Amino acid sequence: MSETLELSHKLLDKNEELARENRRLFDKHGIFVINLLSSPGSGKTSSILALIKELVPEYNIAVIEGDIASDVDAQTIKEAGCAAVQINTGGLCHLESKMIQKALKVLDLEKIDILIIENVGNLVCPVDFYLGEDAKCMILSVPEGDDKPLKYPGVFQAASAVVLNKIDVLPVFDFDMELFTSHIDRLNPQAKRFNISATKHEGVDAWAAWVAEGVQQVRLRSQEL
Amino acid sequence: MSETLELSHKLLDKNEELARENRRLFDKHGIFVINLLSSPGSGKTSSILALIKELVPEYNIAVIEGDIASDVDAQTIKEAGCAAVQINTGGLCHLESKMIQKALKVLDLEKIDILIIENVGNLVCPVDFYLGEDAKCMILSVPEGDDKPLKYPGVFQAASAVVLNKIDVLPVFDFDMELFTSHIDRLNPQAKRFNISATKHEGVDAWAAWVAEGVQQVRLRSQEL
Repeated sequence: MSETLELSHKLLDKNEELARENRRLFDKHGIFVINLLSSPGSGKTSSILALIKELVPEYNIAVIEGDIASDVDAQTIKEAGCAAVQINTGGLCHLESKMIQKALKVLDLEKIDILIIENVGNLVCPVDFYLGEDAKCMILSVPEGDDKPLKYPGVFQAASAVVLNKIDVLPVFDFDMELFTSHIDRLNPQAKRFNISATKHEGVDAWAAWVAEGVQQVRLRSQEL
Repeated sequence: MSETLELSHKLLDKNEELARENRRLFDKHGIFVINLLSSPGSGKTSSILALIKELVPEYNIAVIEGDIASDVDAQTIKEAGCAAVQINTGGLCHLESKMIQKALKVLDLEKIDILIIENVGNLVCPVDFYLGEDAKCMILSVPEGDDKPLKYPGVFQAASAVVLNKIDVLPVFDFDMELFTSHIDRLNPQAKRFNISATKHEGVDAWAAWVAEGVQQVRLRSQEL
């Protein structure tokens, strides 16, 4: 297996190099970039729509949609009035920096305040691929269960913000909030936490405020450049 | 990227070779083997517990639990009175045949009728790694949404049986059963379909009957060997 590991390192190093190029571009244009990670079906797209509702028109948001196949998500985002680029990975289980580089070419970076990269629905592989983002944000949904931090610790450790979605269905699921919180406390005590229902638009304001704060920090930093 | 692809092929070929060895072992002992695939949190472990409730003591069931980290699932299965082996992949996003080979060494194959391999929660990567199983069975849960076949077609195409879990919460989610069914019809018309609620133990009998039928077929085949 050492051959595989060596190649993985090469692949990851190359990805990291391109991620730094992406990062320079983001900084140059003062864009706050979120890499959004979650399982399939935890509500990434509806959470993005909820953020758009809070933050547009004060901020310009663009979205890069990563999917194995289909472009339904990008269409949904466009219908909400934001720029969206679809990346079809053709079977690959995560996004890589070179895919982001291509997507950036079709966006007008001068006009963007916030770029949200919706990664492929996968709690494992995307964690290893830095795309040049300011923050990884992960979404877990209530129906997935309170034990997920135990089983997929990597993504919970890597996230700057942990969003618990679908809190409107807490009454019909056996989800122990105290236990869940204690797992996060142990794995990543510094993570910001938000409990939301994207479809019912509950709790989204606090999460949106965190994003807006990110934009302010990036603007300060890009003025210093 | 051709270097990567070449190595992937080598890795997949090696995996396939070991899968065939696993398969010979399963056939020799007349074991019906299911490779269980789903997203994190769709209810693989509770679905296995529901099957155990239907099929034990008529059949002996053993479970191989694949996880990135933790052994909570294996403990749960053992508490239900079945043999269980935990594989921690150490970060890897799928199970491979060589991991199964190691796990088989600690099981008493003579005593097993049904082996359920609970793969890592991931709708993408495990599909490419044949483990020697008779059937891939995939679980989608209602909260994940009716559009998942569009976004993760590979796993829906590879599955001999598609189990829709958590049907007890259909009233609180916007899940279009007709649309979901039409996606499966298009991708994999031959797949067997079962709608269940593992935790409420609804609809599990039909799925269990399909598993029992698999055991009978394997027994006939192993008598012919």
